[in-house]
Amino acid sequence: MLRFNSDYTEGAHPEVLQHLIETNLCQTPGYGTDEFCMRAAGLIKDACDAPNAAVHFLVGGTQANFTVIAAALRPHQGVLSSDQGHIHVHETGAVEATGHKVLALPHTHGKITASQVAAAAKAQKEDDSFEHIVQPKMVYLSHPTEFGTLYSKEELCEMRKVCDEYGLYLFIDGARLGFGITAESSDVGLKDLAKLCDVFYIGGTKLGALFGEAVVILNDAIKEDFRYLIKQRGGMLAKGRLLGVQFEAMFTDGLYERIGRHGNAMAAIIRDAIVERGYEFMAPPVTNQLFPIFPCEVAERLSREFAFTDMGAVGEGYRAVRFCTSWATTEEAAKALAKAILES
Amino acid sequence: MLRFNSDYTEGAHPEVLQHLIETNLCQTPGYGTDEFCMRAAGLIKDACDAPNAAVHFLVGGTQANFTVIAAALRPHQGVLSSDQGHIHVHETGAVEATGHKVLALPHTHGKITASQVAAAAKAQKEDDSFEHIVQPKMVYLSHPTEFGTLYSKEELCEMRKVCDEYGLYLFIDGARLGFGITAESSDVGLKDLAKLCDVFYIGGTKLGALFGEAVVILNDAIKEDFRYLIKQRGGMLAKGRLLGVQFEAMFTDGLYERIGRHGNAMAAIIRDAIVERGYEFMAPPVTNQLFPIFPCEVAERLSREFAFTDMGAVGEGYRAVRFCTSWATTEEAAKALAKAILES
Amino acid sequence: MLRFNSDYTEGAHPEVLQHLIETNLCQTPGYGTDEFCMRAAGLIKDACDAPNAAVHFLVGGTQANFTVIAAALRPHQGVLSSDQGHIHVHETGAVEATGHKVLALPHTHGKITASQVAAAAKAQKEDDSFEHIVQPKMVYLSHPTEFGTLYSKEELCEMRKVCDEYGLYLFIDGARLGFGITAESSDVGLKDLAKLCDVFYIGGTKLGALFGEAVVILNDAIKEDFRYLIKQRGGMLAKGRLLGVQFEAMFTDGLYERIGRHGNAMAAIIRDAIVERGYEFMAPPVTNQLFPIFPCEVAERLSREFAFTDMGAVGEGYRAVRFCTSWATTEEAAKALAKAILES
Amino acid sequence: MLRFNSDYTEGAHPEVLQHLIETNLCQTPGYGTDEFCMRAAGLIKDACDAPNAAVHFLVGGTQANFTVIAAALRPHQGVLSSDQGHIHVHETGAVEATGHKVLALPHTHGKITASQVAAAAKAQKEDDSFEHIVQPKMVYLSHPTEFGTLYSKEELCEMRKVCDEYGLYLFIDGARLGFGITAESSDVGLKDLAKLCDVFYIGGTKLGALFGEAVVILNDAIKEDFRYLIKQRGGMLAKGRLLGVQFEAMFTDGLYERIGRHGNAMAAIIRDAIVERGYEFMAPPVTNQLFPIFPCEVAERLSREFAFTDMGAVGEGYRAVRFCTSWATTEEAAKALAKAILES
Repeated sequence: MLRFNSDYTEGAHPEVLQHLIETNLCQTPGYGTDEFCMRAAGLIKDACDAPNAAVHFLVGGTQANFTVIAAALRPHQGVLSSDQGHIHVHETGAVEATGHKVLALPHTHGKITASQVAAAAKAQKEDDSFEHIVQPKMVYLSHPTEFGTLYSKEELCEMRKVCDEYGLYLFIDGARLGFGITAESSDVGLKDLAKLCDVFYIGGTKLGALFGEAVVILNDAIKEDFRYLIKQRGGMLAKGRLLGVQFEAMFTDGLYERIGRHGNAMAAIIRDAIVERGYEFMAPPVTNQLFPIFPCEVAERLSREFAFTDMGAVGEGYRAVRFCTSWATTEEAAKALAKAILES
Repeated sequence: MLRFNSDYTEGAHPEVLQHLIETNLCQTPGYGTDEFCMRAAGLIKDACDAPNAAVHFLVGGTQANFTVIAAALRPHQGVLSSDQGHIHVHETGAVEATGHKVLALPHTHGKITASQVAAAAKAQKEDDSFEHIVQPKMVYLSHPTEFGTLYSKEELCEMRKVCDEYGLYLFIDGARLGFGITAESSDVGLKDLAKLCDVFYIGGTKLGALFGEAVVILNDAIKEDFRYLIKQRGGMLAKGRLLGVQFEAMFTDGLYERIGRHGNAMAAIIRDAIVERGYEFMAPPVTNQLFPIFPCEVAERLSREFAFTDMGAVGEGYRAVRFCTSWATTEEAAKALAKAILES
Repeated sequence: MLRFNSDYTEGAHPEVLQHLIETNLCQTPGYGTDEFCMRAAGLIKDACDAPNAAVHFLVGGTQANFTVIAAALRPHQGVLSSDQGHIHVHETGAVEATGHKVLALPHTHGKITASQVAAAAKAQKEDDSFEHIVQPKMVYLSHPTEFGTLYSKEELCEMRKVCDEYGLYLFIDGARLGFGITAESSDVGLKDLAKLCDVFYIGGTKLGALFGEAVVILNDAIKEDFRYLIKQRGGMLAKGRLLGVQFEAMFTDGLYERIGRHGNAMAAIIRDAIVERGYEFMAPPVTNQLFPIFPCEVAERLSREFAFTDMGAVGEGYRAVRFCTSWATTEEAAKALAKAILES
Repeated sequence: MLRFNSDYTEGAHPEVLQHLIETNLCQTPGYGTDEFCMRAAGLIKDACDAPNAAVHFLVGGTQANFTVIAAALRPHQGVLSSDQGHIHVHETGAVEATGHKVLALPHTHGKITASQVAAAAKAQKEDDSFEHIVQPKMVYLSHPTEFGTLYSKEELCEMRKVCDEYGLYLFIDGARLGFGITAESSDVGLKDLAKLCDVFYIGGTKLGALFGEAVVILNDAIKEDFRYLIKQRGGMLAKGRLLGVQFEAMFTDGLYERIGRHGNAMAAIIRDAIVERGYEFMAPPVTNQLFPIFPCEVAERLSREFAFTDMGAVGEGYRAVRFCTSWATTEEAAKALAKAILES
């Protein structure tokens, strides 16, 4: 059984693992105050061209999401999100558990638009009962989205403009960011994100780390006392240097981008087979997640040899599925799947 | 200016006020442990034919909603509601502030169906990632709904059946219940609610009290330690007997139902004029809230003499509005509005 | 049985009730946006000599406490309080339910000192693990305290100084404030509080209202969006004008101070008897709450004719009790109790 | 500089690291549903002689604490803890952020007694205002405590008895459990804990893992839906098998106990020197944490060569400090410190 059901089925990329092994016996202070974390933060600030950013390392994505949101919002404020946003549908109400409402907007291929956000913010402000309605204060995007799609630089600039107009924070969940910034069709890099966002994070878990997300805070209002929030919400690792060690490896010799490009390249092999065979997609195939729509019997047959995620029925006799590639996907495996699709 | 914009523009019904005046100098213990509260609870249990119910008096509806929800749910559980439900759109995220997600379902005239609830509960249970998704544990209905519509006994029985099948609590927000149980078209009374719900409340604020909602708990699992929750969430009135005094008045000599019938009768006068004049409604006009759709110029003209709520544009050149009647609406006022509509 | 067990055993002071009766049929908008609330806020701002204060009316004290705290603090911040503070011991964890820790300091007669606060703030700042410790951000005092004692102007000025030094908000719970500002031994008035606090509230429930507390916010940082918080936490009364009506009555013709003085005068009658008979007090008797220490058999004998609160054993053979007077305590009742004490 | 300031200054024990390396390329499903986690849970259930226990792996101790507490308590319930308990003083209010109050009891050498717990539970139940007071529902102990001390089996049996009498859960934080169960003076093993507790956890982070705590739930009431809570509170690791892999290593060939014994043995070398030199301790020295009291100049001199934690002044001219040993402490390092102490 070859696994294409997620980008976290293996351990760490060998270069990351190697750095963990080499540094295992170093003695450091705990909780992320060590020199590995400091160096990794420096590498990330350089990559983002954001010397004033605050960089914090957290263990996982859900944790990063709710910690950022808890740090940024007052109790009566909520976060605008696609109705397929990870925080809205796949985190067991973690954001609500911090007391904040997720204000869902209908998505298109996982994305929401600046004009949707503007309309929502405007509607609340103009309602006579505005104080009875949760105040939108943050926009949450994922990039790539839950459907593997990407925002263009122009779309993000428009979003920034709307955020400025309505006093909203722009927060980007980059759990799969490495696949986004290295996608052929993308014009958005780390430096753009650092210019356009108030806060975003660079996903490690899905890009070859054992675990770890690097939160990059640009807006001073969110920086203040952020480490208290990390500790309170359970995200402060005792042996915090493990996060620094891993991100140091990922931001050395372009490893982070190499991993992203590899995943995208493996996905492209599969994508090309899907296109050639004439199947359609639920969403444009631009990063390491592909959402083809197969006749049910094809999906069934492929599932005997390959592990992937079922996305549900699409019309009569068809099902959408998700294939995911990663640093660990071999060309051999990708070609085996491509071949099976072509022959389906 | 005659006000039809809500059912709480005046103080208390004279019989309620009279009882408050008469009892003003009585000395009682605080916090709802007095004999007025005990007697009022008894009257309500009788009216519901529910001798084992626990009856608690809270000050307001938002408070009643989040206190019940906080008492009933564990942290990972959420409450299914119409996407127009009061808890979803008009309580500034009060439910989320207790840590729980409101799981919104698309409404029809303010209502949701048993099959929508069943589909949502089933989808979560069958999802491979079910532990990553908020667990539906309660259904929240308002009766009458935010659009003045009502559930039939048959609809509530189906809802109960689905709730039993999926282990869900059924909770009914009866902020305007008096107008519901006395509506001509309704076959649902207090005794039916006490049989079908796990918990519901009987609204006082909109039915002639200065304030006050009587929460009726049928399910033992929700009864336990409920008063702790009332205190913690700010709903425990020091001079708690004020709630008992008012509900005692409302459940004496059929006052509660008299008030409901009066409001509905006054609304019927206005409704008949709207129908006669040939205007349509956003939702069937069956209780004290009416949602006619007027040509913009008619809405504008009426607003010079009458206060009411604008519900927004409906197609080109039309606006929906809301008229609300109450115990305090005089026949004179209702007829004046009816006349103005007929002549519009 | 004559009741001295609390200051909320009766309904409203006749002048307050009269104003409620007179205004019962007025039509007003809801939620505290009416002219009664506006006028009452104006009267309070005048009395405080604080034209820029924001004045909000809430139903009860617990509600006022947690709403202010939720509005003022970020998630990792806590509130310093006496270990006998109402928020620490008698609100069922309402503050913790908003997510904030109460940081308890040992009390003396219900009070804490500026130097205790300074030491706590300093210790946290200087601890190497400061990010692992809740950050003190607010000082909560009650005035009068739970033991009926009062802060002097000098003590409050020192507290203010420490708050400024450590960036702490000063919040005063004035549930019984009327008895404090009219106490013979007090040099602290409303204008002093408005100068020294960031926020405080003027209690109505225990001073002759049916219910109601007027929150006075001086610090702009706490003012912002405060009404959203009131709504979210269940404190926004639909018929909000009831609060305005009552506070208008209480701040007309000096009623609020008259009530305070009356309660104190009735307490003084009882206090003098206790002193004359030679009993001691748990805390200096300066307002409407008295905490004498009686031989057990005296306490037992008095309890047959008078209702009061038992405060527990004090050494061998003695018990402390609490007597409470109010606007409704008659001279006759106070003298009856005094007589019984003298003859005990 | 030799570090004795904590038991998490290095990475993983070589046998743990080796197992991570060997399994790095295995493909497994995520979120702890893999076979490593299943096997590790089996090994732990065997070691605890608790076949019906539910075993869950979380990343860190703060996370384990608040997830267990959030899973077990209703909103009005609190957790009794020593006033030096980790949840009370060193987790930035993480428990309060879940909405629950920590009810602090004065400690003796980090411990609280069954009779203290009984008194607190009894006082709340018997108070007339019991509904205004947080309801104690859980007892939180750490074993070893924050001062390195241990409960005896007899003490835990008494605590269990009191918990049964008052309907309290018994929860033991075993962040350093390995040092406790292998201490010479201890008669409490894993099987005892599994018999006496409702829930406890076996610390990995401080016993040679990179990270990880194994929560062992014995009481069915706490087992239900626990994984939802883990996900919601940020404790569900995507590559969850990393936890299983590490605990599999630690529970193979007695590694967990070997590590505990080693840490204790290294501490004993230092302890003996302290005793021989005639210094006193803040708390009995029985596990891997030692709290000697040194003359200030001795503490100062030692700090030039050794890293350790200052615990503050103890009387005139003396300071308490903390030394911590771990799997990584060499005999050489321990002897160097012992020598320095003897020569001080």
